[in-house]
Amino acid sequence: MQLTEKIQSLNERQLAAHRHRFEFLAGQLSSTADVLAKLRKFQVAIPSWALGTGGTRFGRFSGGGEPRNLSEKIADVGVLHALNRSGGSMSLHIPWDVPDDVEAIRAEAGAWGLRFDAVNSNTFQDQPGQPLSYKFGSLHHVDSAVRKQAVRHNIEVIRQGEALSSKALSVWLSDGSNFPGQLNFRRAFQNTLESLQEIYAALPADWQLWIEYKPFEPNFYATTIGDWGQSLLLANKLGPKAATLVDLGHHLPNTNIEQIVSLLLMEGKLAGFHFNDSKYGDDDLTVGSINPYQLFLIFCELVEGMDQRQMDHATAIGWMIDASHNVKDPIEDLLQSVEAIKIAYAQALLVDRPALQVAQQENDTVRCQEILQAAYRTDVRPLVAEARLRENGALDPVGAFRTLGIRNELTARRGSDAIATGL
Amino acid sequence: MQLTEKIQSLNERQLAAHRHRFEFLAGQLSSTADVLAKLRKFQVAIPSWALGTGGTRFGRFSGGGEPRNLSEKIADVGVLHALNRSGGSMSLHIPWDVPDDVEAIRAEAGAWGLRFDAVNSNTFQDQPGQPLSYKFGSLHHVDSAVRKQAVRHNIEVIRQGEALSSKALSVWLSDGSNFPGQLNFRRAFQNTLESLQEIYAALPADWQLWIEYKPFEPNFYATTIGDWGQSLLLANKLGPKAATLVDLGHHLPNTNIEQIVSLLLMEGKLAGFHFNDSKYGDDDLTVGSINPYQLFLIFCELVEGMDQRQMDHATAIGWMIDASHNVKDPIEDLLQSVEAIKIAYAQALLVDRPALQVAQQENDTVRCQEILQAAYRTDVRPLVAEARLRENGALDPVGAFRTLGIRNELTARRGSDAIATGL
Amino acid sequence: MQLTEKIQSLNERQLAAHRHRFEFLAGQLSSTADVLAKLRKFQVAIPSWALGTGGTRFGRFSGGGEPRNLSEKIADVGVLHALNRSGGSMSLHIPWDVPDDVEAIRAEAGAWGLRFDAVNSNTFQDQPGQPLSYKFGSLHHVDSAVRKQAVRHNIEVIRQGEALSSKALSVWLSDGSNFPGQLNFRRAFQNTLESLQEIYAALPADWQLWIEYKPFEPNFYATTIGDWGQSLLLANKLGPKAATLVDLGHHLPNTNIEQIVSLLLMEGKLAGFHFNDSKYGDDDLTVGSINPYQLFLIFCELVEGMDQRQMDHATAIGWMIDASHNVKDPIEDLLQSVEAIKIAYAQALLVDRPALQVAQQENDTVRCQEILQAAYRTDVRPLVAEARLRENGALDPVGAFRTLGIRNELTARRGSDAIATGL
Amino acid sequence: MQLTEKIQSLNERQLAAHRHRFEFLAGQLSSTADVLAKLRKFQVAIPSWALGTGGTRFGRFSGGGEPRNLSEKIADVGVLHALNRSGGSMSLHIPWDVPDDVEAIRAEAGAWGLRFDAVNSNTFQDQPGQPLSYKFGSLHHVDSAVRKQAVRHNIEVIRQGEALSSKALSVWLSDGSNFPGQLNFRRAFQNTLESLQEIYAALPADWQLWIEYKPFEPNFYATTIGDWGQSLLLANKLGPKAATLVDLGHHLPNTNIEQIVSLLLMEGKLAGFHFNDSKYGDDDLTVGSINPYQLFLIFCELVEGMDQRQMDHATAIGWMIDASHNVKDPIEDLLQSVEAIKIAYAQALLVDRPALQVAQQENDTVRCQEILQAAYRTDVRPLVAEARLRENGALDPVGAFRTLGIRNELTARRGSDAIATGL
Repeated sequence: MQLTEKIQSLNERQLAAHRHRFEFLAGQLSSTADVLAKLRKFQVAIPSWALGTGGTRFGRFSGGGEPRNLSEKIADVGVLHALNRSGGSMSLHIPWDVPDDVEAIRAEAGAWGLRFDAVNSNTFQDQPGQPLSYKFGSLHHVDSAVRKQAVRHNIEVIRQGEALSSKALSVWLSDGSNFPGQLNFRRAFQNTLESLQEIYAALPADWQLWIEYKPFEPNFYATTIGDWGQSLLLANKLGPKAATLVDLGHHLPNTNIEQIVSLLLMEGKLAGFHFNDSKYGDDDLTVGSINPYQLFLIFCELVEGMDQRQMDHATAIGWMIDASHNVKDPIEDLLQSVEAIKIAYAQALLVDRPALQVAQQENDTVRCQEILQAAYRTDVRPLVAEARLRENGALDPVGAFRTLGIRNELTARRGSDAIATGL
Repeated sequence: MQLTEKIQSLNERQLAAHRHRFEFLAGQLSSTADVLAKLRKFQVAIPSWALGTGGTRFGRFSGGGEPRNLSEKIADVGVLHALNRSGGSMSLHIPWDVPDDVEAIRAEAGAWGLRFDAVNSNTFQDQPGQPLSYKFGSLHHVDSAVRKQAVRHNIEVIRQGEALSSKALSVWLSDGSNFPGQLNFRRAFQNTLESLQEIYAALPADWQLWIEYKPFEPNFYATTIGDWGQSLLLANKLGPKAATLVDLGHHLPNTNIEQIVSLLLMEGKLAGFHFNDSKYGDDDLTVGSINPYQLFLIFCELVEGMDQRQMDHATAIGWMIDASHNVKDPIEDLLQSVEAIKIAYAQALLVDRPALQVAQQENDTVRCQEILQAAYRTDVRPLVAEARLRENGALDPVGAFRTLGIRNELTARRGSDAIATGL
Repeated sequence: MQLTEKIQSLNERQLAAHRHRFEFLAGQLSSTADVLAKLRKFQVAIPSWALGTGGTRFGRFSGGGEPRNLSEKIADVGVLHALNRSGGSMSLHIPWDVPDDVEAIRAEAGAWGLRFDAVNSNTFQDQPGQPLSYKFGSLHHVDSAVRKQAVRHNIEVIRQGEALSSKALSVWLSDGSNFPGQLNFRRAFQNTLESLQEIYAALPADWQLWIEYKPFEPNFYATTIGDWGQSLLLANKLGPKAATLVDLGHHLPNTNIEQIVSLLLMEGKLAGFHFNDSKYGDDDLTVGSINPYQLFLIFCELVEGMDQRQMDHATAIGWMIDASHNVKDPIEDLLQSVEAIKIAYAQALLVDRPALQVAQQENDTVRCQEILQAAYRTDVRPLVAEARLRENGALDPVGAFRTLGIRNELTARRGSDAIATGL
Repeated sequence: MQLTEKIQSLNERQLAAHRHRFEFLAGQLSSTADVLAKLRKFQVAIPSWALGTGGTRFGRFSGGGEPRNLSEKIADVGVLHALNRSGGSMSLHIPWDVPDDVEAIRAEAGAWGLRFDAVNSNTFQDQPGQPLSYKFGSLHHVDSAVRKQAVRHNIEVIRQGEALSSKALSVWLSDGSNFPGQLNFRRAFQNTLESLQEIYAALPADWQLWIEYKPFEPNFYATTIGDWGQSLLLANKLGPKAATLVDLGHHLPNTNIEQIVSLLLMEGKLAGFHFNDSKYGDDDLTVGSINPYQLFLIFCELVEGMDQRQMDHATAIGWMIDASHNVKDPIEDLLQSVEAIKIAYAQALLVDRPALQVAQQENDTVRCQEILQAAYRTDVRPLVAEARLRENGALDPVGAFRTLGIRNELTARRGSDAIATGL
């Protein structure tokens, strides 16, 4: 593929400087080979709805050259994956991205080396021609007819995911209430449980059901699956194929997310992640742009907890981005997000675990912090770049995207007013 | 007008029960006449953008029979005002509600007994045909050409407001940044100040400039006018015609809004209010639906502070609703909001001020609380209803709206897919 | 007892005015008798540690006449109960309030009509002579010797509770960490579980174990039992005698506490409450002083959920105050708190449940709010006063406490520098 | 001094490894000399109250060997300064650290190379023998006699500061209210202003008055100087010698502190900093332990804003730590804090300012982030160590403190139950 050659040619110019930095770093570390191997294997799913410009209720300011259909979205993820070699799968959102010709879509994805990760249902919007409205919720609705309609939609999404060899259904419900009294919390929970049980029963044997939680927005008084406790309660009642999905932005102010991650792993109920960053709410900002240390702390729990349960980092849970690109080029934004994730992962792999365990056992808090921050303050960028290089990706993905004029090319082809489906 | 007669006829059926409740209450209070007089005079402006169904970035679920143009919006406010006699003015949003025929619009409003309150500019969205984009802000923009365009828009809004006998321009800027580094805070502030100075210079002699603040959304890292301190700084630099507008939902978690209100009054810089309620952020919920005690405390500061400066409650500052009606009928929602405001106002008027002052001077905290809560726990609904009755409004406005089948009538006339402009 | 006679004599002066108010209210309501019966039965436990002046890490400003020992604390609760007839039990904190002579203590309590509610253990402070420190936690400690010591203390508290006919052990752990890395979250959780299992095994057959949660303070990075999800996870693993205790101040900003309450009731795992109010964190302010509507909403869930499970309101769960009286007389503060609880309870009892259920089923959000607020805006003070009157309590407890000069009398007897044990 | 020699001897063992890291880094950077010069000059004041173990209202767990008087506190700061060469001044808290023999104290400090930074008054606690209580506040008190007493105390603190050649009075008021209605906000503000005016009038010509703000704790409803807006309002009314002090922990959840810093610098009203870190409130944790990126962003604003006004980084504003050491050795904690500050400062100095300005002007948000994070992700520890080395400090201060057994030595001398004054 031509793009790969262009990338190699760019890499060559930067190679000497990179080698110098990488060799210095490798000389400081004892686990370079192991970290490199893990980084090379690590992949983050790209959501199909994040390839266009996002917005807020106040407006949206599109860029240009956005993908107009699923094929073009696959091409965008393909470009991203060619650049960073870590975006090797896509997470589709139904009905925004229904594959009309499944075989053709599989072939296109395959050509870019992409597979299909979890499929996502959508019962937070009404679709044209839909008989019943989700204005007052879907799986929790007081009217069983609406619940049935929403259950059917989810089962349909599973069927479409099967055709693409997906292995999980990811459910985010906006169901909730805007005002005190609007809802009976208990009945809403029980309706949700019953609806999920029907969906669960329709899961293929090797599939999982991922249950996302979120405290507020678009409902501003209560959300029916509002926190990890509620999601876990549902997952436990559903059975072994159900687990809790953590979206980093879906927490109340000051929540200790890393503790939640640790406990969900302990319970064997961590489905995976929707990565993003935020300062106020579900801001859907670039991963690592607001609080990169928190991201690192989350990865510390992941590495420790997965190792303790002998889980494979790359495949045991779902890694996904869920961000909204309001003022950045979506592909550049995604490249920055994946880079931030890999940096945090690399740093977490560098934590001196045996020493930390000793310091914890001795309640030597000062030493615990020194150990964590020694890993965090290490400049691991050469390590991440080297992993990419060995996979034939770009040493500098954002730089390559720009130097190669990829967005201009897309805009020329698709038009400056091409707008993607999604939020 | 026919509606008024229908209202009177409904009132008659409820009159005996109301009289009983009102007379009991009047017998308990010493200041009934004064409170009634103030309640009858008190008016809250209705925003033209709040007459349709609101939504979030995730979707909008319209009802039906929404007003399709400014005339129909005036009619909706007219109905509301006929019902509660407290919504006697409208606040227009330009360019959503540009009056094409000013004289006709004035006549229509006049027929319903309505006047035009502050006009609102909009530089948070791009309008079709607009030469330069507000994607990266307006009055704070790094490019002076964008700033000029935004200044011109604001001056144009003033001109349109003049034609309608408005007396204030209300400016809410979404200007801000989504990411650290995106913006130089100082230059953004100074650009904003310079832009506002140009707008200020264009104000008619008897006009005011109201500067709203908001900490986040649609920008999720920083907002250029982010809190009352920043708004006040600008207002002080601009001059005596500039003041700070408080939107109740525009605060960080746990902010003590009533203290801000007290201090702005002290400084002579409280422009007025955008009323709504919220639990998490700028949720734009019905006034008084989440934390009615906070609303009461705000009114306590208003009454005390305005009396101390001998300001006229009804006219010295701007009273306005700014809410989004996502799951309620907009007119019903506005009726509930105005009712909540008047209840809080009435309760605040009942506070035994001399006794409170003594208790405060003695640091008798228990007594201070007893005095405030004695007023708050008083059921003032008969008082508010009586004030409405004496102005020929409905004893039970929401009930009347329903009994009279007003929405059905509007839907029949406008169509079940009529959607209003606005958020 | 002389106090009761003094109270009756005060009541007589206020009786006519009270009768007038009560009769008006009774005329407006359909369920007066039922509400009165429930209010008369409802009792709130008073914590032994809340009878002295509280403070913060910055200081404490004691009043005078504080109870110096358990006998005097019992007398204080006795006075409170004589005044409001709703504080008929005490919750002891060990080791602050170890009864030296159990029989004498039981007799003193009995003389005031008091019983002993849940006993509380304390492993968040080191006691003189204690072999091992709780600096780094207790039940979660990395050192099993510390865990054993803490388990033994809890079992000892159970034994002391048994002697007083308490029926529950209430456990609040400050265990947590101040810094990332200090703690392994999973091991901390598992250590806590094992420790609790040992305590659980020592529970008498008719006892319960109440597990409190709190997100922060005194640890400022993570708390080992940090939210309701963690407490419920522990309670479920422990067994049917374990349940979750909700302290209103122990939540992150904007938490929807009423939803948690509803779900815990649904799961049969709501142990009870520590009532207080707060604006920022665990502020431990007077119940109902900051957000009385939230308190009402919580009681709405309690009434609905308990009725649905046919639980007896007065006895099925634990009702307790946990507040800190920094600037108010502790007894007056407690009287205000109990009053706020009973007002919220009475209002919740007035909610028109059948109508609400219909409105919910119809997604008539406007009507749902009208129904809730109709109950909330009702001035139920005469109802609460009448319930007290029928139990021979004071019509105006705070007023009676002052008019009778009770604090002066206590100060004269105990000294103006008497300081109570506690926070 | 012997300690310096021991430090040099430790350094020698680590020198080769350090040189290797430093030379690699210097080879990557273009501004090494400039950054080194600035780091060498940069000093952070150590508060006298932070040398003992801190605590919360729930308890305090002292270590041992804490300084028992001002002389011993000076010795502790001297040790710290010898180790990191960046703690060359002390900030005293009166009356906890009144120097009995001023000349002796100055000589002791001088021997360690220390000077005295801002002095701090204390009107949030009552001192033995104090005629009037601060239970209900000090400078804002309703009783002018209490205000006078507090003013006199502040003037006395200025006098003591003068004797030590301090140049600023730092005022933090806990004045506020716990309950709605307790306080008249406006009068509290005006009383505070008048009190501060009296103190301001007593300032020597070359002194400054630093006004700290804090939203809550120890008052939990409102604080009279609650945010930067209120502090700035006071500073502006007082005059050119008054300015606003920023304590990082004194903000509501999600506050954008760096924006406040930028605007205060713009207004010429940034007095300086109390550094610490926090997750929930005024947690007083080690600087950089929770959110090091936020610390970096604050330093980015400082460097940019001070350069733009041509202010000297080291001396133009006050740099101070204000933390509470609850579970760490206080000296180790302070060493970690100073290190975190210098790392953030060094990173901020590495930001490519001209490139950032271009990217900002082009609204190239992706590039802005890349530029900031390139500086942040740089491992500047060798640079900070080199600056220390050139000042004869320890390459690894915490390591040296431990290897040299300094705490053991202090404990042997002072006793294992020595407890410092302070919080």
